[in-house]
Amino acid sequence: MVMLELKPIGVVESTLNDPLAAPRQPDEGAPEAWLVFELQVIEGLRGIQPGHEVIVITWLDRARRDVLSVHPRGDVSRERLGVFSTRSPHRPNPIGLHRAHVTAISGHRIRVAHLEALNGTPILDIKPVLEDDVAKR
Amino acid sequence: MVMLELKPIGVVESTLNDPLAAPRQPDEGAPEAWLVFELQVIEGLRGIQPGHEVIVITWLDRARRDVLSVHPRGDVSRERLGVFSTRSPHRPNPIGLHRAHVTAISGHRIRVAHLEALNGTPILDIKPVLEDDVAKR
Repeated sequence: MVMLELKPIGVVESTLNDPLAAPRQPDEGAPEAWLVFELQVIEGLRGIQPGHEVIVITWLDRARRDVLSVHPRGDVSRERLGVFSTRSPHRPNPIGLHRAHVTAISGHRIRVAHLEALNGTPILDIKPVLEDDVAKR
Repeated sequence: MVMLELKPIGVVESTLNDPLAAPRQPDEGAPEAWLVFELQVIEGLRGIQPGHEVIVITWLDRARRDVLSVHPRGDVSRERLGVFSTRSPHRPNPIGLHRAHVTAISGHRIRVAHLEALNGTPILDIKPVLEDDVAKR
């Protein structure tokens, strides 16, 4: 099987340190956080402004990669679902998607509201939210 | 810099073969496509059904990784933007996000409507669309 290599472009700086205490979704009490970028990718941030909605793509480095099915939200009374039917962090490629609101920018640091990613989580990419992502079909 | 390794879980089977002719967004004429999964991840698909909205995460294998800013949509009359302000495929980690509608499932193959990914594109992950992804804030 081909292996593909990712290079982190930055890291999450957050007060969230405990995976078990972390909110599962941002509307469940996720705090503000800083996205701290590598200096060599700063040019890539040009155009991002406070008020923008972005998708932060992370590498969930504390997740397991050998899990293919889970009880939704860890509730064993619920039937097991394939991880691709859930947002469980545990999956073959532990890529996290986090919709976030930009509140401030300071050099290579971007402040976002309501990020459920843990402190130290590697950042892989940032993309703007498009109308097509949010449209109901 | 730490390197992280991805293992493709499948591949896109599509009539789209030419990167220059491919639609930039799914509402610009993207065709139906098959997502063909590796047999060893089939358990992870349990629960995905026709009618579901999913986010397909791909590796844009024909993209450049050394590009940090672009003219939006290739229009040189528009000011250069950092790639993290755009959905350009060219970026340090060429991860593609594609919202898609599941129309059929056949074993390890999932049919989706309107996928703008090219034939042969590696698939990294599939996630359900959550209310939080689509909510206007």
